[in-house]
Amino acid sequence: MSTFEDLGFCKLDVDREQRTGFPEVVFGSGKTVEQIVQITSRLIEHHGRALVTRISPEKAEQVKALLPQTVYHEVPHLLSFGEPAHRFPGKVAVLCGGTSDIHVAEEAAVTAEWMGCEVERIYDVGVAGIDRLLSYRENIRRANVVIVVAGMEGALPSVVGGLVKRPVVAVPTSVGYGANMQGLTPLLSMMTSCATGVAVMNIDNGFGAGYYASTIQQLVKEASE
Amino acid sequence: MSTFEDLGFCKLDVDREQRTGFPEVVFGSGKTVEQIVQITSRLIEHHGRALVTRISPEKAEQVKALLPQTVYHEVPHLLSFGEPAHRFPGKVAVLCGGTSDIHVAEEAAVTAEWMGCEVERIYDVGVAGIDRLLSYRENIRRANVVIVVAGMEGALPSVVGGLVKRPVVAVPTSVGYGANMQGLTPLLSMMTSCATGVAVMNIDNGFGAGYYASTIQQLVKEASE
Amino acid sequence: MSTFEDLGFCKLDVDREQRTGFPEVVFGSGKTVEQIVQITSRLIEHHGRALVTRISPEKAEQVKALLPQTVYHEVPHLLSFGEPAHRFPGKVAVLCGGTSDIHVAEEAAVTAEWMGCEVERIYDVGVAGIDRLLSYRENIRRANVVIVVAGMEGALPSVVGGLVKRPVVAVPTSVGYGANMQGLTPLLSMMTSCATGVAVMNIDNGFGAGYYASTIQQLVKEASE
Amino acid sequence: MSTFEDLGFCKLDVDREQRTGFPEVVFGSGKTVEQIVQITSRLIEHHGRALVTRISPEKAEQVKALLPQTVYHEVPHLLSFGEPAHRFPGKVAVLCGGTSDIHVAEEAAVTAEWMGCEVERIYDVGVAGIDRLLSYRENIRRANVVIVVAGMEGALPSVVGGLVKRPVVAVPTSVGYGANMQGLTPLLSMMTSCATGVAVMNIDNGFGAGYYASTIQQLVKEASE
Amino acid sequence: MSTFEDLGFCKLDVDREQRTGFPEVVFGSGKTVEQIVQITSRLIEHHGRALVTRISPEKAEQVKALLPQTVYHEVPHLLSFGEPAHRFPGKVAVLCGGTSDIHVAEEAAVTAEWMGCEVERIYDVGVAGIDRLLSYRENIRRANVVIVVAGMEGALPSVVGGLVKRPVVAVPTSVGYGANMQGLTPLLSMMTSCATGVAVMNIDNGFGAGYYASTIQQLVKEASE
Amino acid sequence: MSTFEDLGFCKLDVDREQRTGFPEVVFGSGKTVEQIVQITSRLIEHHGRALVTRISPEKAEQVKALLPQTVYHEVPHLLSFGEPAHRFPGKVAVLCGGTSDIHVAEEAAVTAEWMGCEVERIYDVGVAGIDRLLSYRENIRRANVVIVVAGMEGALPSVVGGLVKRPVVAVPTSVGYGANMQGLTPLLSMMTSCATGVAVMNIDNGFGAGYYASTIQQLVKEASE
Amino acid sequence: MSTFEDLGFCKLDVDREQRTGFPEVVFGSGKTVEQIVQITSRLIEHHGRALVTRISPEKAEQVKALLPQTVYHEVPHLLSFGEPAHRFPGKVAVLCGGTSDIHVAEEAAVTAEWMGCEVERIYDVGVAGIDRLLSYRENIRRANVVIVVAGMEGALPSVVGGLVKRPVVAVPTSVGYGANMQGLTPLLSMMTSCATGVAVMNIDNGFGAGYYASTIQQLVKEASE
Amino acid sequence: MSTFEDLGFCKLDVDREQRTGFPEVVFGSGKTVEQIVQITSRLIEHHGRALVTRISPEKAEQVKALLPQTVYHEVPHLLSFGEPAHRFPGKVAVLCGGTSDIHVAEEAAVTAEWMGCEVERIYDVGVAGIDRLLSYRENIRRANVVIVVAGMEGALPSVVGGLVKRPVVAVPTSVGYGANMQGLTPLLSMMTSCATGVAVMNIDNGFGAGYYASTIQQLVKEASE
Repeated sequence: MSTFEDLGFCKLDVDREQRTGFPEVVFGSGKTVEQIVQITSRLIEHHGRALVTRISPEKAEQVKALLPQTVYHEVPHLLSFGEPAHRFPGKVAVLCGGTSDIHVAEEAAVTAEWMGCEVERIYDVGVAGIDRLLSYRENIRRANVVIVVAGMEGALPSVVGGLVKRPVVAVPTSVGYGANMQGLTPLLSMMTSCATGVAVMNIDNGFGAGYYASTIQQLVKEASE
Repeated sequence: MSTFEDLGFCKLDVDREQRTGFPEVVFGSGKTVEQIVQITSRLIEHHGRALVTRISPEKAEQVKALLPQTVYHEVPHLLSFGEPAHRFPGKVAVLCGGTSDIHVAEEAAVTAEWMGCEVERIYDVGVAGIDRLLSYRENIRRANVVIVVAGMEGALPSVVGGLVKRPVVAVPTSVGYGANMQGLTPLLSMMTSCATGVAVMNIDNGFGAGYYASTIQQLVKEASE
Repeated sequence: MSTFEDLGFCKLDVDREQRTGFPEVVFGSGKTVEQIVQITSRLIEHHGRALVTRISPEKAEQVKALLPQTVYHEVPHLLSFGEPAHRFPGKVAVLCGGTSDIHVAEEAAVTAEWMGCEVERIYDVGVAGIDRLLSYRENIRRANVVIVVAGMEGALPSVVGGLVKRPVVAVPTSVGYGANMQGLTPLLSMMTSCATGVAVMNIDNGFGAGYYASTIQQLVKEASE
Repeated sequence: MSTFEDLGFCKLDVDREQRTGFPEVVFGSGKTVEQIVQITSRLIEHHGRALVTRISPEKAEQVKALLPQTVYHEVPHLLSFGEPAHRFPGKVAVLCGGTSDIHVAEEAAVTAEWMGCEVERIYDVGVAGIDRLLSYRENIRRANVVIVVAGMEGALPSVVGGLVKRPVVAVPTSVGYGANMQGLTPLLSMMTSCATGVAVMNIDNGFGAGYYASTIQQLVKEASE
Repeated sequence: MSTFEDLGFCKLDVDREQRTGFPEVVFGSGKTVEQIVQITSRLIEHHGRALVTRISPEKAEQVKALLPQTVYHEVPHLLSFGEPAHRFPGKVAVLCGGTSDIHVAEEAAVTAEWMGCEVERIYDVGVAGIDRLLSYRENIRRANVVIVVAGMEGALPSVVGGLVKRPVVAVPTSVGYGANMQGLTPLLSMMTSCATGVAVMNIDNGFGAGYYASTIQQLVKEASE
Repeated sequence: MSTFEDLGFCKLDVDREQRTGFPEVVFGSGKTVEQIVQITSRLIEHHGRALVTRISPEKAEQVKALLPQTVYHEVPHLLSFGEPAHRFPGKVAVLCGGTSDIHVAEEAAVTAEWMGCEVERIYDVGVAGIDRLLSYRENIRRANVVIVVAGMEGALPSVVGGLVKRPVVAVPTSVGYGANMQGLTPLLSMMTSCATGVAVMNIDNGFGAGYYASTIQQLVKEASE
Repeated sequence: MSTFEDLGFCKLDVDREQRTGFPEVVFGSGKTVEQIVQITSRLIEHHGRALVTRISPEKAEQVKALLPQTVYHEVPHLLSFGEPAHRFPGKVAVLCGGTSDIHVAEEAAVTAEWMGCEVERIYDVGVAGIDRLLSYRENIRRANVVIVVAGMEGALPSVVGGLVKRPVVAVPTSVGYGANMQGLTPLLSMMTSCATGVAVMNIDNGFGAGYYASTIQQLVKEASE
Repeated sequence: MSTFEDLGFCKLDVDREQRTGFPEVVFGSGKTVEQIVQITSRLIEHHGRALVTRISPEKAEQVKALLPQTVYHEVPHLLSFGEPAHRFPGKVAVLCGGTSDIHVAEEAAVTAEWMGCEVERIYDVGVAGIDRLLSYRENIRRANVVIVVAGMEGALPSVVGGLVKRPVVAVPTSVGYGANMQGLTPLLSMMTSCATGVAVMNIDNGFGAGYYASTIQQLVKEASE
């Protein structure tokens, strides 16, 4: 039986780090500055670190006024506090198809870093210029986990999945228009990828991918010890 | 004003060759052997050649008994009569992602050949093994038109679109399961391709792609004269 | 192996003109003025011309302040620099169904012109007044490629496809309401057109159609030489 | 308050003719031969005529063995008994796009005839060969009501709607494949038609269209008296 | 062959009244005040009357400043000029389910009136309080055509269709939330209505319904002469 | 903590009756005769009664050969054993729209009876003949719970929801074609019903509705004691 | 036959309390302050109490200025007047998955309270921290009805449905992004729940759930008398 | 550059083991016995082992007649040859919701075993009987990777994701009916899971999940060396 702390408007899952290896992360979207500060403070007290996702620059500024040691990452809209408890061996590669996908890729990258991963960023390597991707072939193959972020038709994970022997975590984005269907098309496309070894996250869920890669890296770290 | 011939159950568009450059083609699916024979005979009389699409081996055999000079193409379920009126200069490349897509690719290839194209087939070059595709890079680049047939997530046209300067005709197939959505996912995926220069046909519509490539080749032929 | 130029936030595909016949085009939507200026400048240096799509009047004005020789096309939201490298023989016809579709049709027309095509515009010829369309029958038939832009139910390409022997490039638009489904209905409708010789672009993708027509015209030009 | 007759498995709406002008019609699909015979017999007793829709040849034969005066219409799978109570002035035109749509068109035509309409059939006039349709322009314009049956992309009603001043009843069919989406695409397409004066029936619902036209013709008859 | 007048940005279908019985109607949404004034003026010159749909109060005010004899109908956002050419015998009943559907119902009602119909409005008679509807049973039955406007689940036309012997024109609205799917659910629901004699218009298309009813009334008028 | 019994291929939830008030019910579809017999036998041993849903006549016959005291209900494809542990006070009304919905209605009715409910069946009362429904108004109002089964557009629960003060359990069915979308349309339609007091079950889930009504009746029974 | 009061823009269903047990409730969204005040006043006169749903703080303030005794509930955007006519025995438990679902849960809770229910709120007990939920197992099991509000994937009702023997009323919310599909995914997910005894409301329809629970509690109250 | 072997109908990716760590696997569905035998033989020659997925019992029997040392796994329809090249440390847990999901779970389990994983099967632990799942809490937590297979609403991965600190690979199945939408609902549901650390495979893609888990286990093995 795990325990939690009742903040009135939410039940803080303080037991989570022990249970799942990482402290609870705050989904900032839809929460007030007050709520974010209250939860974040409690998390810092419990774990010495905290991460808030999907927090706008305006809200972040207000939170930082009250919790000045937090760091705001502008591109991925993340607010972090504290350092990772440990560093994982090996690298996580984070790829994205186009420059418009970078904010999602950064959400993955910064999350993974905050959790203890070393990240190699390989951006703007969409399949329409396949040689850009292939020029990074060795870098990609050397990573322990490969996060692939792509909008439009979401073809990138299929190519990457065929290049590596490591798990690929694919993240569809809502970047595109018309038949992109707000990201539904690349989501379905990645699900039915012709490459094996590709698992898929929700649309624009860079955080989830960074977290997922970290659980794999955690496993690698434990195995190497 | 064009003219047509009333066969009772259908109005034969005998004027079509003059108007659109090619005689009417018979969509075999859902037609009886009798109807196919009647229409095909009239087309042969008018144009000296005919093409029937989506005709099952059983029906084809019955039609051949009555029209013995027709040729049945087993893989693409096409029945043809006669030779192309002319040969077009240059090549049409027909690519497909996997072996299960071959029947659609062949529908495109045989249609294009029947219309006068020289076809180069490059099959089973799905993006999950990107080097197979790239080893044909020069062949693909030399073609006047590139037809790309792919099921699953339909990523192949995006890669090919970035390799060539020629028009790419993409054909999604219903090959796959689950998130493939009977071909709807690759259809939408190809529509929102990150590559420019890709136009899309209906699901499994190899015939349409072969026809489309031929209209382009017809233009090339006229220009070269 | 192609080469590219790393601008930090993007990998500029400077090799693209050689590979695909045309320089890379900048998708303006979602890029900052700064990014647009930086990429456009580099493209101008490399190729002597550039095209930016989906750029708002406000951004365009700012870019023009820094790159005064660029030209802004208000209706299609295009920003162009430079003249086409060559003029293609023959015409591209651009048709649209209603006045609300004109901005997409213009995106196709201006793109094609910037690439070297001569364009004939035939607008507001929706099928509900079929005689308007038919009064242009000869003009349409004389074109090498026919771009057909239509919203609502997207019926226009089916009629046009039956009138001509040239490739038709259909562009569904999000013009309409309710059952138009933000353009998904005409997209699917054009895919399943009863006319042969129609290939389809993404919703509102006038640029893609203009580009596609230009690849065909490029082929015609080479053949005629 | 209307009355009904309880047959155990169904409540026969014998009051319906008085209330809505026509006797209840039996939807044959999913009913046993026994049930069809029982309902049909009661309808004949009450109204002197009856109509059964969507009844397979096998079932129809069994019903005819028991109710020998019924007539089976093979193409539209209708079984009818009796003559219309009256003949309506003027004509109903029934158009269809292709030969594969004829069974739905015939369902409309035979229903309308059974209800008292004079029907003019104009089949295989799909928009891809627009001159076939236009050669019937006058016939179509002379009809009181125009039923337009079309599969594929369902463009025909949009063209017809622009030719006539009479109400158009559009019927999408499931004829097609891929992007036709089992008729959903023409259904949505007809709903968002660029022509005014088009109302839409369910997919393959020829019966409904024939019935609808008859309610209009009934009104015309009463007005002319 | 019909004729049209080229205004540059549009081809005015001045021949339309002769062809379809009513002058062209201006779809105001997406047009500038300038365009609306120009088209409306020409229509008034040609036909002595005009109707503009989906025009906002702000635009309407500007148009009225230039064309002061036009009348703005606030609830349905219609702008009209002139009187109907003739009055049709009998009535059109316009029903709606809830108060939120009234603007669509009024679009139907005012359109029908402008075209010459006498309209009886029966509003807020949704099926959840069935006795409200039934208390108007006789009024509804006396109408020549019944327009039924409903949002939410769109059940009203099914009940009304079973009460009358006249054609029912159903209009789904986007009123509702969640499973209403912006009106797609009532659209599909009305298409698959268990009542016969119901034809369906696009979501929120009150204008179309009013126009359709008028074509039927026109027929009635001609028959009665 | 509840307990269960491991049968190898399944974990029998023998604790369920104590936890949820009713023994586990066997979903017959997809299970072999052997599996059904094995689970049913164990349930009978534990609880003295058992219910199997969605079991075909062929399988049922084989099961009955081995468990002869079971009773097969042909219309709803249910196999039952044993009597209800108690009878609930008051009635459950089960309504359905058309004769084709009866098998789902019977699944609800027989399930409810097997669980202890008294059921009043009111079938074939679809809204297109509203007086049939209204003639049962008092019967419906007297019930404690009203189950409403409807296919096509699923309008019946909206009308019934406005007639009664008791909870309505709505069950959409896949009866219909085209826009019925295999029951998705009535499902969405019932969800967005204009009547309050309507909750919805899965498509064709008569069993769930019967079960749900029984949990309410169980509550009533306890309250009345 | 029930009666109603015609306010011009709406037909007030004053007979509703007698018919369905509760007075009509005002759907505030889309109504003007004036309309809300007029309807609410009439309801108060008739029934001595009133409830307005989906009313924004701004509108509520204006209504309160005119009807000062009304109470505004900020979180669920409800405006109420008066006390319940009676208190029901037993409790309704209202659960929700996350803090972002609270406004919908409160809509259910306050509605149920206004109707006479005693409510126990158990919030932020999403299944990703299952022990939080299980620590309330006994509280949940003691309730007469359990309302379960959940966004994202909507898994909570499936777990709760397996814990209790009472009816579960599930409410999907539009809380989430991407594959949540504005609440359509949890709606479908709850419909196809693996737990029996779960009925589903429209997306975000907390009011409907509170109302539904009250109809059950009303039944319990009558049974206990 | 990788190499491949051209078998005519396919290009065998014999280089794949070196590139991705595992030899190519044969997707049996849609291939002839002849093709399967030819490819499988070549794979055995190259790698000493082979795996064929989605092969029916009938085809498997024919293949086994020619390749007698292959083993057919009846439940998951897999045909395997040879032993894993190495055994990975730690376990992969494979969970499924119901007995009908077992064939997909077994596809995952046998694939993982064939690749070198030790698998612990925990079947029939759907969330509607949450205590069954929780009684395996420790077993699940001890696994390196957790594969979770579930149909219906697909809630299981959300609960499991909150219990463990290891990566969860979720597989939606097409088990269910109606709102299950052939597995689309659990697919979307798993994508939008409220639990972090869950990545998703295509519908019914047990093979992909087993493969994915093996890539993680491969990493663990290398790290531990």
